[in-house]
Amino acid sequence: MTMNAVKLKTPLAVAIASAGLAMASSANADATNLEQRLAELEERIEAAERRADIAEERAELAEKATQERLMSGEVRERLEKVERQASGEEGFSFNAYARSGLLLNDQGKSAEGGPYVTPAGNLGGAVGRLGNETDTYAEAILNYRQQYDNGAKAKYTTMIADGVTTSNDWTADESDLNVRQVYAEFSDLPSFTGVFEDASIWAGKRFDRDNFDIHWLDSDVVFLSGTGAGIYDMKFADGWTSNLSLYGRSFSDFEVVNRENPGDDTASTDNLIITSNNYFGNWQLMLNAMSANDNDERDIEANQTAAEKGGHAMLAYHGNSFFGLSDGSFKAALLHGQGLGAEVKSIGSNGNLTDDATATRLALYGTTYIAPAWRMAPSILAEVSDDRFAEGDDYQWAGLNIRLANEVTENFEMQYEASYQYMDLDPNGYDGRNPVSGDYSSLTIAPTFKPEIGGFWQRPEIRLYASWKDWSDELNEYSANDSFGNEDFIGDEWTFGVQTEVWF
Amino acid sequence: MTMNAVKLKTPLAVAIASAGLAMASSANADATNLEQRLAELEERIEAAERRADIAEERAELAEKATQERLMSGEVRERLEKVERQASGEEGFSFNAYARSGLLLNDQGKSAEGGPYVTPAGNLGGAVGRLGNETDTYAEAILNYRQQYDNGAKAKYTTMIADGVTTSNDWTADESDLNVRQVYAEFSDLPSFTGVFEDASIWAGKRFDRDNFDIHWLDSDVVFLSGTGAGIYDMKFADGWTSNLSLYGRSFSDFEVVNRENPGDDTASTDNLIITSNNYFGNWQLMLNAMSANDNDERDIEANQTAAEKGGHAMLAYHGNSFFGLSDGSFKAALLHGQGLGAEVKSIGSNGNLTDDATATRLALYGTTYIAPAWRMAPSILAEVSDDRFAEGDDYQWAGLNIRLANEVTENFEMQYEASYQYMDLDPNGYDGRNPVSGDYSSLTIAPTFKPEIGGFWQRPEIRLYASWKDWSDELNEYSANDSFGNEDFIGDEWTFGVQTEVWF
Amino acid sequence: MTMNAVKLKTPLAVAIASAGLAMASSANADATNLEQRLAELEERIEAAERRADIAEERAELAEKATQERLMSGEVRERLEKVERQASGEEGFSFNAYARSGLLLNDQGKSAEGGPYVTPAGNLGGAVGRLGNETDTYAEAILNYRQQYDNGAKAKYTTMIADGVTTSNDWTADESDLNVRQVYAEFSDLPSFTGVFEDASIWAGKRFDRDNFDIHWLDSDVVFLSGTGAGIYDMKFADGWTSNLSLYGRSFSDFEVVNRENPGDDTASTDNLIITSNNYFGNWQLMLNAMSANDNDERDIEANQTAAEKGGHAMLAYHGNSFFGLSDGSFKAALLHGQGLGAEVKSIGSNGNLTDDATATRLALYGTTYIAPAWRMAPSILAEVSDDRFAEGDDYQWAGLNIRLANEVTENFEMQYEASYQYMDLDPNGYDGRNPVSGDYSSLTIAPTFKPEIGGFWQRPEIRLYASWKDWSDELNEYSANDSFGNEDFIGDEWTFGVQTEVWF
Repeated sequence: MTMNAVKLKTPLAVAIASAGLAMASSANADATNLEQRLAELEERIEAAERRADIAEERAELAEKATQERLMSGEVRERLEKVERQASGEEGFSFNAYARSGLLLNDQGKSAEGGPYVTPAGNLGGAVGRLGNETDTYAEAILNYRQQYDNGAKAKYTTMIADGVTTSNDWTADESDLNVRQVYAEFSDLPSFTGVFEDASIWAGKRFDRDNFDIHWLDSDVVFLSGTGAGIYDMKFADGWTSNLSLYGRSFSDFEVVNRENPGDDTASTDNLIITSNNYFGNWQLMLNAMSANDNDERDIEANQTAAEKGGHAMLAYHGNSFFGLSDGSFKAALLHGQGLGAEVKSIGSNGNLTDDATATRLALYGTTYIAPAWRMAPSILAEVSDDRFAEGDDYQWAGLNIRLANEVTENFEMQYEASYQYMDLDPNGYDGRNPVSGDYSSLTIAPTFKPEIGGFWQRPEIRLYASWKDWSDELNEYSANDSFGNEDFIGDEWTFGVQTEVWF
Repeated sequence: MTMNAVKLKTPLAVAIASAGLAMASSANADATNLEQRLAELEERIEAAERRADIAEERAELAEKATQERLMSGEVRERLEKVERQASGEEGFSFNAYARSGLLLNDQGKSAEGGPYVTPAGNLGGAVGRLGNETDTYAEAILNYRQQYDNGAKAKYTTMIADGVTTSNDWTADESDLNVRQVYAEFSDLPSFTGVFEDASIWAGKRFDRDNFDIHWLDSDVVFLSGTGAGIYDMKFADGWTSNLSLYGRSFSDFEVVNRENPGDDTASTDNLIITSNNYFGNWQLMLNAMSANDNDERDIEANQTAAEKGGHAMLAYHGNSFFGLSDGSFKAALLHGQGLGAEVKSIGSNGNLTDDATATRLALYGTTYIAPAWRMAPSILAEVSDDRFAEGDDYQWAGLNIRLANEVTENFEMQYEASYQYMDLDPNGYDGRNPVSGDYSSLTIAPTFKPEIGGFWQRPEIRLYASWKDWSDELNEYSANDSFGNEDFIGDEWTFGVQTEVWF
Repeated sequence: MTMNAVKLKTPLAVAIASAGLAMASSANADATNLEQRLAELEERIEAAERRADIAEERAELAEKATQERLMSGEVRERLEKVERQASGEEGFSFNAYARSGLLLNDQGKSAEGGPYVTPAGNLGGAVGRLGNETDTYAEAILNYRQQYDNGAKAKYTTMIADGVTTSNDWTADESDLNVRQVYAEFSDLPSFTGVFEDASIWAGKRFDRDNFDIHWLDSDVVFLSGTGAGIYDMKFADGWTSNLSLYGRSFSDFEVVNRENPGDDTASTDNLIITSNNYFGNWQLMLNAMSANDNDERDIEANQTAAEKGGHAMLAYHGNSFFGLSDGSFKAALLHGQGLGAEVKSIGSNGNLTDDATATRLALYGTTYIAPAWRMAPSILAEVSDDRFAEGDDYQWAGLNIRLANEVTENFEMQYEASYQYMDLDPNGYDGRNPVSGDYSSLTIAPTFKPEIGGFWQRPEIRLYASWKDWSDELNEYSANDSFGNEDFIGDEWTFGVQTEVWF
């Protein structure tokens, strides 16, 4: 049709031109002239009409294209659905955390290590993790999300995890592969209104949604997990949201002190934890009460009684700046627990605590840029606890850690970490341990590749590292079962390695 | 271009108006007038022509949009492919079954329980599961589907599963994680014609496709599984489709009764099961023959011989209504087995059955709405068996279970379950068990949240529950290895808990 | 608007017709006539103008459709993103390898078997696998790929794998489920230029990317794996690309020969392997050096010292034709290792090798069509090694295997395999083994279904098979711990089975 239209143009132009010439002829010929001009005009108008026909026809295509646009609306709708599916907003999605690498001593053999390597480690006293990890640890998280016609949403999460220290590929003998989480969570339930308007409910086995950590120490501030059910995000008042959960945990088998058959029977006990987590602006107040019926039958040591109950509280502040000093973030938490609550991080997970156990912990970290390409993340973790595993025991430890990163190119940065921990531990004879006091220091340098730099939480990373660690000789005497004092691991240690760390 | 077109309109309108005025003037001025009008017309037609040009140009866009529409066809095709991928029709897809929660007694400790908790449980006598499950059990099913240019389709399925009773998150010590299914299935093979037109073939390790269960008892009616190969959906005649499969199973190691070295050697034996599954309308006839060479060398007890062979048949009806009484569904099955076939549910899985063992089981359930928001699902499971594990043993048990659900809101329902089981078990001394008879009853109430109510098979659910269970005292005497009579689990028990159940 | 336009057409046509009639009337009526014709023309031009208005309006739709086209560009962009996600180019993707089936002897019991079934098997001497596999082995590979704004790409891979020989579905007791790979790999890093332009880096636990195998023997030519880091595809010169990696492996615990506390202590040792892999056109030169500090403390046998170091080299050719004879492919490799390098396939995985151990291996295979529907894949694997596990031991073995396939229909083929292996093994008393020499032969026929035939690497397959195996009687005497000579597995064996094999 375009062809025809174009062909028409030329005769029209000729017609216009001849009409112009015709107007220049004698007046006598006026009638004929007019006749002629009229005929020409008629011709031209017919041509114009034909072109109008063509234009109309073509315009109809435009209208169809409009319908097409509507159809594209359908396309867009379907596209949005597959986008939701591809992004995991609906249907399956995959998340992971993993670290894997080598940690070698100057003999080229696997080195001892880990954030919990010091004597304070079994009390939760973590030190810096950079260049200090010995394991291949991986979590595979399989999620499935559903959206319903009534607006409700459901999420199902299952996590399998494994951690081994061997470097081999086939690790069936060493495997710790296990299912750490299996839970469902519902939100946007249409009959939830008022206080429950934004609430979601869950049941199963899980890590609590609101756990948070000091990443550089591989230590949660609180790590609440187990099997149970709960409700998140009730809104009791403006500026007050609240969670309520029941978590069960199992204390491993223990020998029952039975008067009739001493040491002849074993039992396990369940610890039930009621937790209330409250947010007021940046402030968080978490309260936990727990009860483990018959745990007092556990034989922890002569003349001592394992706790049957526990209490725990945490006051935390989640800051939007680097302690008000610069852009960044900080978190600070004060935790206190008694009885079974004296394990202040992994709430309710330790059945060996005495009735009188108390622990108070401070956890704190911040992140900021101290120069355009220099990031800094300092942290403090410190605890005092008494009568923990034995009457009269007394543990004190405090650590400071600083991670520095210098972003050199868009995919490379130099990372540095300095870690210091002081500890004064008096186990009062518990488990054959000796009282010690002293300190631990480490310095690590880690050239680090990442696909794209982008701050504190950007992973994956591939690192090389060299690390120097030293500690007070006395710490080697604490326990025969820990790393310090093991074989040649006695202080002034150099370690080297490579590692990847991934999460998404 | 729109701008130009609009600008042209005003002078044209003026021209028309002045042409009208011109026509009202004297006849003497006619020629001039005509001349003028013609000139105006010429002007107007030139304008019209210019506008036609513009319209043509614009119309060309419409044509391009038509091409765009064709392109959109390509878009739609590509969209359909990603839709197939996103939905799992092609490529990866994820399915799951999971349950996880707490079952507590009135002391706040983990309670005994489970659908197989009664003495009849080890014979397959399941009771109601609501508020009666103690484990975190999860299946993760990873599928991969392919479509071929010749029309053929392939499906690969692998399932990993785990079940633990601890409430802890890290369960490496208790982990039962294992691979339960690994198989491939092909359908729509172009060279399959005639009887095989709609047939599909499979090989690997799997749960048979046509297993079916009484969900509320957590009991399959038949559960055929193992490693092998087979063909589904052969069509021998109108209204007769048929499956044929070979399944292998392994009986666990047993001590070989060896005359020369009595009790000095162990062996394992494989059970091979040939199964033919036939469908005639709503009727199903399943026939199984099995053979486990050398299984008679197994020492099951003095003077008795373990079966080397077995036979099994099931006649089932899959109803489209609630027993013809109302809308809904029902299934009824009568199963009979001899020798190795006397384990009538988990076909071929038990190597301890005697040569003379016989078992006959009735399984039946239905689902219906008894009022607009009230669902009901009753079921019966009953069995008689003789000479099962020892000559002269005699087991009889029958159970009735009813699940009721009252849909209260669009995301909440009240569920109720009543379960009753009578048993008269005479093991004739097998495994130190005592003859008992008596009954078991339970009542459960379970407020249940779900994202959207929607009938019997709609999951996920999050439930709270309270349950009362009682049984004849005599049942506590059956075996020292079962739950009844264990510690304080002696009857008149109250249990409480929370749980999620998920499948998709 | 279309309606209005159509309505206008008719009066216009009438107007044209009447204008024609008017022109045929008397000259006296000329002025009136002209007047009338002009009026008509004016009317028509007004109509034409209205139509031009309409056409313009419609053309505007065409313009919007153009915008729509641009929008469709957005649609296409979004579509391309979901296509990348659906295909696994971005985000999650799933890969698998699996085999599962039954291998039965003529008694209907599970048969011994496997490509490593012969005495040469524990030295790496694999024979044909068709109809010779006893296990359900499955790998589930979960990948996650990310693309960054700066062009960089990251891939995360985790693989879980399991292998069992039981036919049962629930295999918690036998489970070998473990995490075989966890690694991250980065490519297209913007600051990688020059030699590193196309290089990618990785860290974690993995199978080396460039391992390759002789599929029909289930034997890699090299299988390098472990935990470490490396860099692929450095380009040192035109036609020379090179990889450099560090892999760690762990030798299992062994008793330390300690003068003070003989046999009283255990230790594990790490083997560090530096590998350089170089490609020059079709040629590959791989060099490995390894060191396992303190491995000489291992007690392998009196008067012998386990190696602390090792060297290994492989020269390989990757051919694009069937040995230059016809279309197809071939690969040939010559491997030599000393000390810890004398395990020439699974590099660095064996800590029991002596200081003097040497091994030289030839590996070779080709694939071609020998007739339109006949594929052939012959292979050779042979090795000589000395002082391997004990001074003076001497092992020689060589095997030839041919797989033939006749593509019968588009989803069915007949597969055949003939395997022969000669071995002359003198362990010089190591581990109580006896010197033997002799040969092994097998013939297998396997009717094979696949969704679509398509050459050597097309899977999934479902196979039936019958196999005959025979060997020299003397081979039954080699070791009490291997299959040969076990129970009734003494030669002239028939086996039967079904199996699926899957990869994608």
